[in-house]
Amino acid sequence: MKLSKVGQFRLIDIIKRKNPAKGKDVIAAIGDDAAVIKDKAKNSYILLTTDSLVEGTHFDLRYSTFYELGWKLLAVNLSDIAAMGGTPKYALVTLGLKKNMSLANIDDFYAGIKALANKHKVEIVGGDIVSSPKSLFFTMDLFGIAKKVIKRSGARPGDAIISIGSLGGSAAGLASLKKYGRKALKIMGSNVEAHLMPSPMIKEGRLASRFATSMIDNSDGLARCLIEICGASNVGARVYLNKIPVAKGSTIKNAFNGGEDYNLILTVPGNKAKAIKRGIMIGEITRARKIMLIDSSGKASVMKEKGFEHF
Amino acid sequence: MKLSKVGQFRLIDIIKRKNPAKGKDVIAAIGDDAAVIKDKAKNSYILLTTDSLVEGTHFDLRYSTFYELGWKLLAVNLSDIAAMGGTPKYALVTLGLKKNMSLANIDDFYAGIKALANKHKVEIVGGDIVSSPKSLFFTMDLFGIAKKVIKRSGARPGDAIISIGSLGGSAAGLASLKKYGRKALKIMGSNVEAHLMPSPMIKEGRLASRFATSMIDNSDGLARCLIEICGASNVGARVYLNKIPVAKGSTIKNAFNGGEDYNLILTVPGNKAKAIKRGIMIGEITRARKIMLIDSSGKASVMKEKGFEHF
Repeated sequence: MKLSKVGQFRLIDIIKRKNPAKGKDVIAAIGDDAAVIKDKAKNSYILLTTDSLVEGTHFDLRYSTFYELGWKLLAVNLSDIAAMGGTPKYALVTLGLKKNMSLANIDDFYAGIKALANKHKVEIVGGDIVSSPKSLFFTMDLFGIAKKVIKRSGARPGDAIISIGSLGGSAAGLASLKKYGRKALKIMGSNVEAHLMPSPMIKEGRLASRFATSMIDNSDGLARCLIEICGASNVGARVYLNKIPVAKGSTIKNAFNGGEDYNLILTVPGNKAKAIKRGIMIGEITRARKIMLIDSSGKASVMKEKGFEHF
Repeated sequence: MKLSKVGQFRLIDIIKRKNPAKGKDVIAAIGDDAAVIKDKAKNSYILLTTDSLVEGTHFDLRYSTFYELGWKLLAVNLSDIAAMGGTPKYALVTLGLKKNMSLANIDDFYAGIKALANKHKVEIVGGDIVSSPKSLFFTMDLFGIAKKVIKRSGARPGDAIISIGSLGGSAAGLASLKKYGRKALKIMGSNVEAHLMPSPMIKEGRLASRFATSMIDNSDGLARCLIEICGASNVGARVYLNKIPVAKGSTIKNAFNGGEDYNLILTVPGNKAKAIKRGIMIGEITRARKIMLIDSSGKASVMKEKGFEHF
């Protein structure tokens, strides 16, 4: 069967099923935001995650500078650590480069990584440089630690569903870049910035981990976040459309399917909903394993959105 | 300046100089086979490494099966851990895929990884799947541990230079594949196998770490190994051409410049040279910071070879 028919998320499920982690120290493996290894000696956890940016798939050099790409590569990896409630520590950077690039491009790229790395005290400790003549790619591996980890699988009926940060901004920013090029930054500043240089929610994730029963970073749209949390936790959800914090200048459709917002979606016991700083309650977890969307008139319908699929 | 003028190894030097590791727990960072982080609680070290295979640069689907590519992706990463004297533990796998691939390709790829992973008790704990329409790429991140680590920088004048494993086989195998296609496996079996499915020297590296003062895995040719060890250790070398264990059917030129042999090159105090299992002494470390090649008549000349550069 062709991968275009299988789809990205089913492919991950298939790989996960065929490659079960066996070690008793492996707390989370394929299918969560980061792998989690128990570190018994320290009564803590090691987090391992990786994310890539591929030319033509994740970026276009007409819209992004190398500085922004460096920032974004670290940001999307930090976001995975944030989603586990962890603290990032060390990064490896793989550069898949074309020969005709200039050294200044690489300098700008690392300057972008370092601007964000310094904020979060992340050290770049290694990597790999390879030739990739047809399309650039950048991969980062991030090593982090956590005293307590929040997986996708802990949501319970009655839990509140919380969004920290707004939704749909990145997709609106990208649409604007495609229409206006770099001028989009002047026309639709904050959404374009959200797309080019997302702000990972490390601190928010760590604070939320005190109460969260499940958590995920929103890389592929709210619909995908809900599907992943509900699927992993064997529960359903009821989401109120008028409560979703859609970014100014964006649409509810972008919020569900756009992706790349890198905000956090989490669940907490109902009585803790107000304890989540900057959190907005958008619904609740249900026992019935369906994801229902409730419109402003109170009408409920099954969610049809599936989030952003790469193929 | 264009990267084609800078060259791969100078680019690594530039990135290393501009991104010095600051944390006192960081024992080795950019520029060694793997990053090394001190784990004080356990009095041991954490190793982090990454290596990629890019279509058109590292492989050609006319010559390699997906099973072989999976094996090789793990093998080249294991080799980095072997070069530090470490034990591999957990891997993340990034797949940069084309939509028109089949699910069977992915199954074969993971079967290849697992065949080698089972040998070395490595667990695949996560990764990432992205669309890469123009050329496939595969990246692995490998997490390992070590009680004692061997860096490139510890070679001392008087040390013996040792090769574990033969040299030049992989390049001869690749040349044969380019000439005969998959039929090359029948014509020049062991060299072609060495190219398609290298055997990483995890056990040899761990044993050698008892005595080694420096060690590197040979991914870019013997010339590059000598340059790296001598450069990092501020020493020179004298290498006897007639002692180099050139793979049967290959040439001394392949041994110096071919790359992808994934054998180990190390240095040990002279009186320990015989203690290295399967080790062949090919020369010695000198105070004078030049790399001299000695031919069978005893004539010495400065090494001109530079190893394999990606660009």
